[in-house]
Amino acid sequence: MSLLTVGTVAFDSIETPFGKVDKVIGGAATYISWAASYFYPDIQLVSVVGDDWPSDEIEAMNSRGIDTSGLQIRNGEKSFFWAGKYHEDMNTRDTLATELNVLDDFDPVLPENYQDSPYVMLGNLTPEIQMSVIRQMETRPKLIAMDTMNFWMDVAWDSLLKTIAEVDVLTINDEEARQLSGEFSLMKAARKIFELGPKYLVIKKGEHGALLFHKDEVFFAPALPLLEVQDPTGAGDTFAGGFMGYIAKTDDISFENMKKALIYGSAMASFCVEAFSLDKLQNIKAQELVDRMIQFKKLVHFEI
Amino acid sequence: MSLLTVGTVAFDSIETPFGKVDKVIGGAATYISWAASYFYPDIQLVSVVGDDWPSDEIEAMNSRGIDTSGLQIRNGEKSFFWAGKYHEDMNTRDTLATELNVLDDFDPVLPENYQDSPYVMLGNLTPEIQMSVIRQMETRPKLIAMDTMNFWMDVAWDSLLKTIAEVDVLTINDEEARQLSGEFSLMKAARKIFELGPKYLVIKKGEHGALLFHKDEVFFAPALPLLEVQDPTGAGDTFAGGFMGYIAKTDDISFENMKKALIYGSAMASFCVEAFSLDKLQNIKAQELVDRMIQFKKLVHFEI
Repeated sequence: MSLLTVGTVAFDSIETPFGKVDKVIGGAATYISWAASYFYPDIQLVSVVGDDWPSDEIEAMNSRGIDTSGLQIRNGEKSFFWAGKYHEDMNTRDTLATELNVLDDFDPVLPENYQDSPYVMLGNLTPEIQMSVIRQMETRPKLIAMDTMNFWMDVAWDSLLKTIAEVDVLTINDEEARQLSGEFSLMKAARKIFELGPKYLVIKKGEHGALLFHKDEVFFAPALPLLEVQDPTGAGDTFAGGFMGYIAKTDDISFENMKKALIYGSAMASFCVEAFSLDKLQNIKAQELVDRMIQFKKLVHFEI
Repeated sequence: MSLLTVGTVAFDSIETPFGKVDKVIGGAATYISWAASYFYPDIQLVSVVGDDWPSDEIEAMNSRGIDTSGLQIRNGEKSFFWAGKYHEDMNTRDTLATELNVLDDFDPVLPENYQDSPYVMLGNLTPEIQMSVIRQMETRPKLIAMDTMNFWMDVAWDSLLKTIAEVDVLTINDEEARQLSGEFSLMKAARKIFELGPKYLVIKKGEHGALLFHKDEVFFAPALPLLEVQDPTGAGDTFAGGFMGYIAKTDDISFENMKKALIYGSAMASFCVEAFSLDKLQNIKAQELVDRMIQFKKLVHFEI
């Protein structure tokens, strides 16, 4: 029983209205793995880095139960690098630099012990790489979740649709759901997207929360209003990691259980944005998570 | 015991991606009164129209328990007119025409039986008109709520602050809360706004729901994902009308009761946007409202 995740492991340089950091730890799979590790002690990481990647970051992952035997380390090459600057509203950002480096010809290879993982989280990458991971699974996982973005809708529509057809849960933002479906109503968008293959749709709305759709049902997880928001980078990945980590822990893919998973994902994301990089995500105490879940409950609980 | 409301009663011409209507019934006080009338049979309207305003609309209001003795009807003059076009995302719009007409020199006069109303809802208007209504109250109402917008922050800052200082509940959107407070975090914005006078802050986020702040507490009402959204015009006013109507009905200004009021307001707004003008708002069946409240409960209810 394990949770396999594939995605970037990267250096980020980030500027927000609340500060600036240079060449810090980032990447979708980094956020996903760390978030999931709070729920489940058996995470399998598939990614690639250069020899500039700090070995103590790998050791820290291993000590959290994250298996890095699927993390390729390329000698003489550099890790993926992304630089971005957030606008005043923190909801939009400009990409200042993207250096693919090792990611340019990344070909994921799944170690044998990864190939029967019941839970798979495909972080945002080219749909071809995501598909390659699915193809290498010996047994069909119980639940495959996939994150993607509008960029792939623009440049890789056909292979994106092929990959989407293979997964159970699709996670995208509201704008992307509208682009993918051609529908403005998110209820209608969900129905159209279910016709593409997925049985579950998670629509991430950043500071406005997240929606979970399944058949004719819909559930909403709010975002917690926070005193400090420093950096939204990785919030969506952290959310996905918490969501899938809780599902793997409970080994229960019922809609009722997924609701709880959505709230756990939102709680993890709320920690993520309170600090730059993984500064908070690597240091959450168990009691803090419990307290935050109670805050979420209080935020939306009412009697009629 | 009554709920007094002041605001525009107007003709609107509206274009959205889903249709177009010309010179239909609109105005903040129209939406507020109709929404509140589903909860409370004693609403008092303060506004002004020209002799072009349809008398059957006034009769329809009266039959709902809306007292229109405070509605000035100016012979030989035209009612306020607004025309707008919504963008594809339905969250932003361009104003195509604003004809103040009777509103240009509107001086609200409260009939004597209005002056001891315990509940007051000040719809979006110049802060001076809102203040004039407060000044005409014989006894301090139990609860005064005030809606406003960024326009008054830009052109009437000082009188806006003076009016805000007199009210208990301020309703604005997230962007306006940030502009008014100078804070990005809505938690911090709420604290700053409480220093201006109000004890309660409602932040309206349209299709992303609404937040209610009081002291250190916060409650969130989601927006219901809908199959059909035709026209967002009046949704914020309908929300405010449902919110204040429920509070007037229950005569209970505890935070616990306000949570329910916030959900009722959201439920009313969800009906409003399903059709143009007041087409749906004037025709909601009691069972429809009950069913919708259950949908809101299911949307956010989870166990931890």
